[in-house]
Amino acid sequence: MNKTIYNFSAGPAVLPQCVLGQAQEALVDWQGSGMSILSVSHRSDAFLEVVAKSKQDLTELLQLPDNYHILFLQGGATAQFSMVPMNLLAENQCAAYVNSGYWAQKAISEARRYAHVTEIDIAKFATLDADWFNDHSVDYIHCTPNETIEGLTLPAYPDMPDNIPLVGDFSSIILSEPIDVSKFGLIYAGAQKNLGPAGITLVIVRDDLIKPALAGTPAMYNYQNHIAKESLYNTPPTFAWYVVGLMLSWLKQQGGTVKIQQHNHEKAKLLYDYLDASSFYRNAIEPDYRSKMNVVFNLPSKALEKEFIEQSAQAGLLNLAGHRSIDGIRASLYNAMPISGVQTLVAFMQQFERNHVN
Amino acid sequence: MNKTIYNFSAGPAVLPQCVLGQAQEALVDWQGSGMSILSVSHRSDAFLEVVAKSKQDLTELLQLPDNYHILFLQGGATAQFSMVPMNLLAENQCAAYVNSGYWAQKAISEARRYAHVTEIDIAKFATLDADWFNDHSVDYIHCTPNETIEGLTLPAYPDMPDNIPLVGDFSSIILSEPIDVSKFGLIYAGAQKNLGPAGITLVIVRDDLIKPALAGTPAMYNYQNHIAKESLYNTPPTFAWYVVGLMLSWLKQQGGTVKIQQHNHEKAKLLYDYLDASSFYRNAIEPDYRSKMNVVFNLPSKALEKEFIEQSAQAGLLNLAGHRSIDGIRASLYNAMPISGVQTLVAFMQQFERNHVN
Repeated sequence: MNKTIYNFSAGPAVLPQCVLGQAQEALVDWQGSGMSILSVSHRSDAFLEVVAKSKQDLTELLQLPDNYHILFLQGGATAQFSMVPMNLLAENQCAAYVNSGYWAQKAISEARRYAHVTEIDIAKFATLDADWFNDHSVDYIHCTPNETIEGLTLPAYPDMPDNIPLVGDFSSIILSEPIDVSKFGLIYAGAQKNLGPAGITLVIVRDDLIKPALAGTPAMYNYQNHIAKESLYNTPPTFAWYVVGLMLSWLKQQGGTVKIQQHNHEKAKLLYDYLDASSFYRNAIEPDYRSKMNVVFNLPSKALEKEFIEQSAQAGLLNLAGHRSIDGIRASLYNAMPISGVQTLVAFMQQFERNHVN
Repeated sequence: MNKTIYNFSAGPAVLPQCVLGQAQEALVDWQGSGMSILSVSHRSDAFLEVVAKSKQDLTELLQLPDNYHILFLQGGATAQFSMVPMNLLAENQCAAYVNSGYWAQKAISEARRYAHVTEIDIAKFATLDADWFNDHSVDYIHCTPNETIEGLTLPAYPDMPDNIPLVGDFSSIILSEPIDVSKFGLIYAGAQKNLGPAGITLVIVRDDLIKPALAGTPAMYNYQNHIAKESLYNTPPTFAWYVVGLMLSWLKQQGGTVKIQQHNHEKAKLLYDYLDASSFYRNAIEPDYRSKMNVVFNLPSKALEKEFIEQSAQAGLLNLAGHRSIDGIRASLYNAMPISGVQTLVAFMQQFERNHVN
């Protein structure tokens, strides 16, 4: 392998080379112990240091208030689609969900199995006011701040009343920009986009929301159990947790979420500016709603899109095919994608356009 | 790190050096793709080959009949403690559980949240006969063929009637010996002992047992969903799955379960023979019930056990402390533990005994 490649996969996604290098070393001899990180007991002092450091780094990176618990769980966002209603539903047994796209709809469809769900239109979400909240007795509101498939983001949030927690699926934007966690009761994120490898899920929940779960909730789906055991209720995915720890250190070295956001905005701007200037490629999303993480676009025909995906892959620009549900092109620009990846992509797009317009 | 170490951890546990070496290479450049295995899409052709090969190798190693599904899930055995009753309970809403020890009791306590549970004594299990089955209307019987904490194994199984499936928690003995899967309706195993890293769980289930789960079962806890999507219902723990695939190839290279069993029996015999010949160390378990995977023993006093654990660790014999619930000493001798590890342990034990008896 000599050629430089750039991996635009929506997840599992690109990770920084220095993180991979450290993980590689730890895979055979972790910290000079002679043991692989894969064979280290989750109850050992050495691993408990990984656990403590990951929580400390997250607290720092997110400027997390004291009254939130950090949990590392399994099952991805899909498990949270069930855990959220099973743990947060209260006397109303009603919840409202912002229907922003594919992933929001997955969350809604699972929530309907436990709750009466009111859907909120993406354009209406930020305008919810005291009247709306008076008219709707909901136990929580759920939103998906970034939709990876449609390439959409939520540009603004309403002022939430104190008694209704906001829940967010941050799988695809966690730590890609500053978040004011205090505006949320619970946030969750599968790791495999901005935070690490597949197989581990971050949940951050405000302590006043923790109460007995619905009857019949499996032990592993009960936040109380994981809080009581500090995410070691059973054997956790130790290697994935370790790599998340490396990623958190890397994010701190990059200057934290403010610097990362600048970098991510620069990457997204480069691509959107080019798309907007081109009459060959198109992205029809209103600028305010455009995702910084997943940039989707189309070419003049399906045939050209197929050719684009084949030729870009040959040029080392990998995994640019859109999600199988909508096709088109998608470039995911998560934290670990360097600006050189986007520059190379834009140069390829220019050349491809030139080759096909005349 | 120059000293040879042996890791007797009960899990996450030792893996073969050649497996670690392959995983190490794949962590930075998998199959010459220039991509880390951590960044490969679970929907890519390359990863789907890992999926297919792992199923094919398991089928071969276990001589799996056609009418079983292989699933790779998350959540460990603990998730299965809920999934089994949520999916297998039928009209009786009753199940019987063999109460063999710590892990069986964990399974029982979760099952009681969904079913009426009859407990079966470990000594009585093999003697269950037609009369017992006529007297007990149970939807399934659950057993734990190896108890890692007490160092116990089930020496024999009853003849099961056709209409009552036997379910087994094989977390600590899967692929350490041949299993006649056709005697079981469902077997499950967390990977982090004999099969790979933490974070992935194997479930093998007979197709006639698949039916709608209890109302309120989370989508990710429903076997039907995972079968329909061939374990890709959502993003799976790709790296853990990949390493399990490497382990399966390694197990085939070792000659499969018959050869592995010989090797494992040889290791266990070496240690048990020494324990039986010693008046310093003791293991009080009846020979038929002794685990080949987890050998537990005691020294004449707690103080000596503490000293033993400290000195053995200094000698590179790691993680010999018994489980925190019962203390004592425990040596886990999973598939990847070489016979040299047990020889070195026995030599250390002889020396320690000599130093303390006179």
